[in-house]
Amino acid sequence: MGFETRNPDFQQRVADSFQRQQFMATIGAKLTSVNAGQVEIQLPYSPDLSQQHGYFHGGVIGTIADNCCGYAAFTLLAATDSLVTAEYKLNLLAPGIGDRLIGRGEVIKAGKSLAVCRADVFVVKDGSEALCATALGSIAILHNRPDQQAA
Amino acid sequence: MGFETRNPDFQQRVADSFQRQQFMATIGAKLTSVNAGQVEIQLPYSPDLSQQHGYFHGGVIGTIADNCCGYAAFTLLAATDSLVTAEYKLNLLAPGIGDRLIGRGEVIKAGKSLAVCRADVFVVKDGSEALCATALGSIAILHNRPDQQAA
Amino acid sequence: MGFETRNPDFQQRVADSFQRQQFMATIGAKLTSVNAGQVEIQLPYSPDLSQQHGYFHGGVIGTIADNCCGYAAFTLLAATDSLVTAEYKLNLLAPGIGDRLIGRGEVIKAGKSLAVCRADVFVVKDGSEALCATALGSIAILHNRPDQQAA
Amino acid sequence: MGFETRNPDFQQRVADSFQRQQFMATIGAKLTSVNAGQVEIQLPYSPDLSQQHGYFHGGVIGTIADNCCGYAAFTLLAATDSLVTAEYKLNLLAPGIGDRLIGRGEVIKAGKSLAVCRADVFVVKDGSEALCATALGSIAILHNRPDQQAA
Repeated sequence: MGFETRNPDFQQRVADSFQRQQFMATIGAKLTSVNAGQVEIQLPYSPDLSQQHGYFHGGVIGTIADNCCGYAAFTLLAATDSLVTAEYKLNLLAPGIGDRLIGRGEVIKAGKSLAVCRADVFVVKDGSEALCATALGSIAILHNRPDQQAA
Repeated sequence: MGFETRNPDFQQRVADSFQRQQFMATIGAKLTSVNAGQVEIQLPYSPDLSQQHGYFHGGVIGTIADNCCGYAAFTLLAATDSLVTAEYKLNLLAPGIGDRLIGRGEVIKAGKSLAVCRADVFVVKDGSEALCATALGSIAILHNRPDQQAA
Repeated sequence: MGFETRNPDFQQRVADSFQRQQFMATIGAKLTSVNAGQVEIQLPYSPDLSQQHGYFHGGVIGTIADNCCGYAAFTLLAATDSLVTAEYKLNLLAPGIGDRLIGRGEVIKAGKSLAVCRADVFVVKDGSEALCATALGSIAILHNRPDQQAA
Repeated sequence: MGFETRNPDFQQRVADSFQRQQFMATIGAKLTSVNAGQVEIQLPYSPDLSQQHGYFHGGVIGTIADNCCGYAAFTLLAATDSLVTAEYKLNLLAPGIGDRLIGRGEVIKAGKSLAVCRADVFVVKDGSEALCATALGSIAILHNRPDQQAA
């Protein structure tokens, strides 16, 4: 994509923000890759994350997609800015049957006040990845409001 | 709305399905109301559900919205059918700052193979409710596939 | 809803902007009601607007929904501001079979930089209205950029 | 993508259906490419298609995106089936300033009763293409209902 970041420390800043999200620890999600305009998040299966048939719950899949969009946008922020998800749309394409989810998010358009992002979520079973959901979302940039500071 | 259900035991069936979703226990969500075409789900705050500022994580809000849409549609199913969320879109309207989330979902259109549903999620703080998210989603009906049976 | 406008002349300003949209004349759409936070747009049927079965084309229904969201938000703008649709999601609920479309849009949340709006589109046949589509969208506010001025 | 069609005459069938959509003639849209799981639609600029600043109206951009999703799914139908758009979400990324729109749609997931599709819409100015919108939508398959037959 060739996005330019406004902050050379973006990888550390994304990692710090992710670390402060206690819900990520609750569901066992890890940030596994951070590049300018792109992130990857992984999550191993646990019965605690399941819907009524024992598969990954759609809410977990949606959470991963949402965070992939948000943190992909976060990689391009200035150090003085933060962001919130304005909206996203998620299409569930296949049941979440497998050992692990891998979400990959990327920025499609980095606007001044809105970033538009896409995320694909894959479920891994017996070592092979299948696309189980895709999302398209808008992330609102909050200028001059650092991420450590509450809204 | 005046929807007719195809199954007089719909309340028990919705409660049974919700009970089998272990992710609902993980996040502490309870089904608090079930009527034909409408459900309500509530969730108390816990730091385990928080994003980087300590508020309810958007993924938790999205999970409640998704389940409100799905179980609203579920109330209208025949006993032999089940469903999956095909897609939803969520707009986040205010930060999830408060003691409790209340999600309310309703069916807008009960089609033969797709139900279109809406859900509002409110955050309760000091006893007053504020709308923090709204969702619009499509639920796919799986004919002749009971909910106890895996996909 | 009880929205306050920032411009006492909002009705004239919305009418002027709508009038400058030549595509509205092309499809025969008229602005039939403008209130703070709410607008209504109507459109008579013509074969020129049809899909392959002779019904209203989904693109026409989507156009009405998009404009209902946008002009509902427009009613709340300051005189120095303008807006663009950032995104919307449309669910088509019934075929557009009838003599006329009526779109009704309203603001759900009037934020500083984004307004979230909802629109319902009804098709009128033999004098009775049926809901044929519903939309949920986000409108980006452009501060200090009057609507007469191009982007 | 490697999609298999169920009908060797899919290109003719898509062209016939498109031809019957009078709204495509009204806005001057042409089907410029049809392959298994993918279509392209083009549209020259006309002031009749403009919004208040003289650019392509968002409703025209949305119409192209919707039809790109729908006809991409149509390429994979059996000869006895037809389809309707169930829903789509459109993000507008840049103003539609240019001489021509090019929409490109593709199927992401070809399910039995729902196809999930993506469409990008580009605006061409001085010979170069810029992405102005992206859409993600769900197309409902109507089994045993030919496209020539009304709903």
